[in-house]
Amino acid sequence: MKKYQVVGIGNAMVDVLARADDSFLAAAGIGKGIMQLIDMDRAVSLYASVGPAKEISGGSAANTIAGIAHLGGRTAYVGKVKDDQLGAIFAHDLRAQGAGYATAMAPKTETAETGRCIVIVTPDGERSMNTYLGVTEFLSPDDIDDAQMAEAEWIYLEGYRFDGPESHAAFAKAIAACKGAGGRVSITLSDPFCIDRHRDAFRHIVRDHVDLLFCNRAEILSMYQTDDFEAALSNAASEVAIVACTDSEHGVHVLSAGQRWDVPAVPTQIVDATGAGDLFASAFLWGLTTGQDLDTCAKMGNLAASEVISHIGARPEADLKTLFKSRGLL
Amino acid sequence: MKKYQVVGIGNAMVDVLARADDSFLAAAGIGKGIMQLIDMDRAVSLYASVGPAKEISGGSAANTIAGIAHLGGRTAYVGKVKDDQLGAIFAHDLRAQGAGYATAMAPKTETAETGRCIVIVTPDGERSMNTYLGVTEFLSPDDIDDAQMAEAEWIYLEGYRFDGPESHAAFAKAIAACKGAGGRVSITLSDPFCIDRHRDAFRHIVRDHVDLLFCNRAEILSMYQTDDFEAALSNAASEVAIVACTDSEHGVHVLSAGQRWDVPAVPTQIVDATGAGDLFASAFLWGLTTGQDLDTCAKMGNLAASEVISHIGARPEADLKTLFKSRGLL
Repeated sequence: MKKYQVVGIGNAMVDVLARADDSFLAAAGIGKGIMQLIDMDRAVSLYASVGPAKEISGGSAANTIAGIAHLGGRTAYVGKVKDDQLGAIFAHDLRAQGAGYATAMAPKTETAETGRCIVIVTPDGERSMNTYLGVTEFLSPDDIDDAQMAEAEWIYLEGYRFDGPESHAAFAKAIAACKGAGGRVSITLSDPFCIDRHRDAFRHIVRDHVDLLFCNRAEILSMYQTDDFEAALSNAASEVAIVACTDSEHGVHVLSAGQRWDVPAVPTQIVDATGAGDLFASAFLWGLTTGQDLDTCAKMGNLAASEVISHIGARPEADLKTLFKSRGLL
Repeated sequence: MKKYQVVGIGNAMVDVLARADDSFLAAAGIGKGIMQLIDMDRAVSLYASVGPAKEISGGSAANTIAGIAHLGGRTAYVGKVKDDQLGAIFAHDLRAQGAGYATAMAPKTETAETGRCIVIVTPDGERSMNTYLGVTEFLSPDDIDDAQMAEAEWIYLEGYRFDGPESHAAFAKAIAACKGAGGRVSITLSDPFCIDRHRDAFRHIVRDHVDLLFCNRAEILSMYQTDDFEAALSNAASEVAIVACTDSEHGVHVLSAGQRWDVPAVPTQIVDATGAGDLFASAFLWGLTTGQDLDTCAKMGNLAASEVISHIGARPEADLKTLFKSRGLL
C-alpha cells in the first residue's frame, strides 16, 4: 500500500471572503464567477473597498486535499507559503485536518507575501475570485520531492498552477516521479480563462499524462475551443481514462471506457459557491481510492459539493461520511 | 451634535474560531465559557492542537463598535494592533463596517504581534476564549486622544482592558476628557475572572465614573462578591444610573432610577455564543443614543444578541435594523 492515496499540488491561498452585490462587481471591474489574477497594489485597493471579511484557508487543490483528509484519506499537499501570519494559518488548517503539508515556508525576508484570494460572494451565492498569488507563484521543481510523488497512488494537479513561471517544470517532475512508481495523474482545469492563458500546455499534459480529468462545462469548452459540449466531452474521453465534468445544477457527467454516467446534482440552498468543484474532486478521488465504482464516486462528489456551497468557506463543515451514509453510499 | 454617539476602547483582537468538544477543553486545561490570558508559547501550542479554524475580527468592544456602525451609528474605536497581517485584517474590518479606527499601528519592529483570541466553540455553542494580548496589552494614555473623547456622547470601556499595565491610566484620561465635555461613560465588566484580577479598580471606576454598566450574572456576582443576585443588582443600581445585566436564556434585567425591566431573551439556536454580550451592548447603546426608551433598548439588545449567536463569529451578519423593524421596535 502506498503511503498516500492522493498528493495534491496547488496554489496555497488564504481566502478573504466578503459579501457584495453585482453592482459592486461592475464598479470594481470584476468578472463574475471567474478567477482573476491581481498584483499586490490591486489587492490592497480592492481589499480597502470591500466590507468586513472572514479569513478561511483556501486554494483549490488545498481544499480538495483538506476534503480527502476530512474523509480519513491518506493525503498530502504541496504548495508554497511565506513565514508570515497567513502562511501559518494556511499550514495549520491543512495539518489540523490531518493532511501532510510538504513545502517549507519562504523566509520572512521574501518580499512577496503568502497568497490570498479576495472572494466576493454575491447574493446568488456565486463567487468572484481575485487572486494575489504571492510566493505560491514561485513553486519550482525544487519544491517537488520525487520520493513523495512516488508514494502517491494519485497525484492531483491544480490548473491554476499553470500560471507560475516554473510550474510546468514542477508538474513534469511530479508526473515523472509518480508515474515512474506506478501512480496515476489527475488534474483539474480550474478556470476557462486560465486555460486560455495556457491552452497548449493543458492540451499536452491532458493528452499525454492525465488519467483522470476534472473540469466543468465552461472549462472543457475552452479547452477544446468549441461550443459543442457533447463534442468536447467525447474529445476528452478519447484522451483520458476518466472524465468527470461538473455542470452546475445539472450535476456531473462521468465518461470512462465507453460508458457514461449523468448524475444529477443534490439540490441545496447556495450560500457560497466557493469550493464546489474542489470538494467534488475530494469525494470522487476518495471514493475511487477506496474502491467505489464511478457512479458512487460521482454521487459522493455531488453530495460533498452540495455541503460546501451551503455555507461560507470552501472546506467541509458537516461530516461528509455521515452524509454519504445517509444517502446509502457507504 | 457630537461627532460620535459612542467611542469604544478595548483590546484589539482577531478571533481564531475552532470547534472542539468538552473533552478537548479538559485535556487542554481550558476553563469552559471564560476568557483566559495566554502567552505566545501557549498560543502556538494551543493553536497547533486545534482543528481547522476561521479568522474573523473580534475583540469585545470592537464587536460592540462594529455593531453600532452596522446600525448606522456614528462611532469610533481605539485599540492597538501591529503593522502585520492580522493587524491589517482587524483595522480593515472596522473601517469597512463604517467605524472610525483611531490608533496608529505598532511598527513591524515590535516583537509582540497583533492580539488574537483562540476561541474554542463546543457543540453546545459555548465559547471558551484563550487570549494572546500581544501589542494591545500596551495601549497607553498616549493612545487616547482627548479631543476625540470630548467628541463622544458616550465612551464605552471594555473590562478586559484592565489587564494592561497602563490601562487604568488610559481609561482615566478618556473618562476625564469625555466627562469634561459633558459626555457619559459606559463600561462592560467583560469576565468574572478579569474582575477578580482587578476588583478594586472596577469598583472604583463603576462607583465614581460610570453612568451605564453592562454585565452578566456571573460578573455582577464577582464584582460585589456575593451569591445573592438580587442584592448584587440592587448594589449596582445604587451606584450607577443605568444597569443592564444580561442573564443568558433569561434575557436581561435593566435597572434605572428606581424602575426595573426584565426583558426575556429571544429564543434561537445557539451556534456560537461569541459576541452575545458585545452585540447586546451595540444595540442598547445605539437605541439609547437614538432616543429609544430603556425597555426598547433592552429588546433591541436581546435581538442583536440572538442574531450574533446564531452563526459563527461575533459580528452581525443579518441586517439588525430589519430585525428590529420585524419586531415592531422601529
